[in-house]
Amino acid sequence: MRVALGVSYRGWAYHGWQSQADRQTVQDVLEKGLSQFTARPIQTVCAGRTDTGVHGLNQVVHLDCEVERDLSSWVRGTNCHLPKDIAVQWAMFPRADFHARFDARGRRYSYVLLESVVRPSMEAGAVGWTYRKLDGDLMREAAALLIGEHDFSAFRSSECQAKSPVKTMRKIEIEKYGDYWRFDFDGSAFLHHMIRNLMGSFLAVGRGAKPVEWFAEVLARGERRFAAPTFPPDGLYFTGPYYDAEDGIPTHTAAMDWLPGYRKNRDGA
Amino acid sequence: MRVALGVSYRGWAYHGWQSQADRQTVQDVLEKGLSQFTARPIQTVCAGRTDTGVHGLNQVVHLDCEVERDLSSWVRGTNCHLPKDIAVQWAMFPRADFHARFDARGRRYSYVLLESVVRPSMEAGAVGWTYRKLDGDLMREAAALLIGEHDFSAFRSSECQAKSPVKTMRKIEIEKYGDYWRFDFDGSAFLHHMIRNLMGSFLAVGRGAKPVEWFAEVLARGERRFAAPTFPPDGLYFTGPYYDAEDGIPTHTAAMDWLPGYRKNRDGA
Repeated sequence: MRVALGVSYRGWAYHGWQSQADRQTVQDVLEKGLSQFTARPIQTVCAGRTDTGVHGLNQVVHLDCEVERDLSSWVRGTNCHLPKDIAVQWAMFPRADFHARFDARGRRYSYVLLESVVRPSMEAGAVGWTYRKLDGDLMREAAALLIGEHDFSAFRSSECQAKSPVKTMRKIEIEKYGDYWRFDFDGSAFLHHMIRNLMGSFLAVGRGAKPVEWFAEVLARGERRFAAPTFPPDGLYFTGPYYDAEDGIPTHTAAMDWLPGYRKNRDGA
Repeated sequence: MRVALGVSYRGWAYHGWQSQADRQTVQDVLEKGLSQFTARPIQTVCAGRTDTGVHGLNQVVHLDCEVERDLSSWVRGTNCHLPKDIAVQWAMFPRADFHARFDARGRRYSYVLLESVVRPSMEAGAVGWTYRKLDGDLMREAAALLIGEHDFSAFRSSECQAKSPVKTMRKIEIEKYGDYWRFDFDGSAFLHHMIRNLMGSFLAVGRGAKPVEWFAEVLARGERRFAAPTFPPDGLYFTGPYYDAEDGIPTHTAAMDWLPGYRKNRDGA
């Protein structure tokens, strides 16, 4: 039986999502927990691999297992075998050939950035930081250049294993909530370090170091060396993939309400 | 010269605020950083001690130092000598006899609580958690009973060293933002474990296990054994003291915008 799970995690204790021989990764720890819960070896396929230090709020995985458990057991039973910084948020039984990675129509990420003269403390590791004042309108102008299908080679890490650098960016939203900026990205797929590289270049524009024309030129030239340095992973959240509506895969988890601006007052409902 | 500082910190790596001989505390680490910055031994007096695992967003301290530095150096210079989970947020030169503890007119705390069937993961250690649905109106009814001057012995830990259990509660606000509740407390001073004990009893009422009359009776009887168990420190934030307006001590820091509901959209200002 195929099972789909939504998984949230804090990335800073892990060497990214993907299983590695001698380092702790989110996939390794999740699969160990699932194997303990089911008393079977379990392997998972995820919608989008995340890097060291990047967080997940609704990573979607699928797995096959002949053991029958009800949906709430998949959530609660697995969580008993996971450390405090990883949790299964929901479980469902998708169609038999549902594939977490290949069926995804797109993926969403958010980057949270503190703009303050003082660095983060309480929220260290959970936000990026700039002490310079940023101009939202300039960054939105730069972001508008990315919408549609583009060759994103300029923002691709040299270790990227994607077959093609051509991806479709559907939406970028940039808003400020209190002293925190939230950048939301919605696209078909993302190259290795693409968002962290984009963030570096957005900030160059936002603080006035480079004009929007420079950003356009960087994108057009398609060479990594012309763009700004890679931004830290601290504020990067994989908020999850989305699928065809008839697959019924959830796109929201409680953990998302922790991000600035996601919250709405739903008391008394 | 007397200096006042606002300090923010994540509590989970520290055995509370107060200096201890053989354990790492926030005060020890802060004073070590200040001593490195000034090249002098520095001792601080704080507005309110916090327990193991409790966070501070605007702890106020004062200190005396004959070294002259400008205000931004006190902030940036000290932060260079502090770990990533502690930061000085602001500095000022108060009147010569300003006292962080004795001059405080009151103190504010917030407790953040996740209401979800699934435990926290990304925000583990930064929020309390309940899987039961809570009734805000019932909890607000219970909270209203605490406003004014009361003997808070029922919510006092056995290790409390305060001279008197009689304190004045000025305001309690309970609101829900997304899946997160925020409880705000404003009072003259707080007994040891008082808020964590109050939280346990609020939840007993909020989930319907006890009626509001029980809460009133617990308060009136004044014995700890009748109240609910102590709640974990994870979601407890000392949001800081307040002083007479003419002292000009800041009551807001950027870190407060990280709490649910504190944030307002100030982009484009």
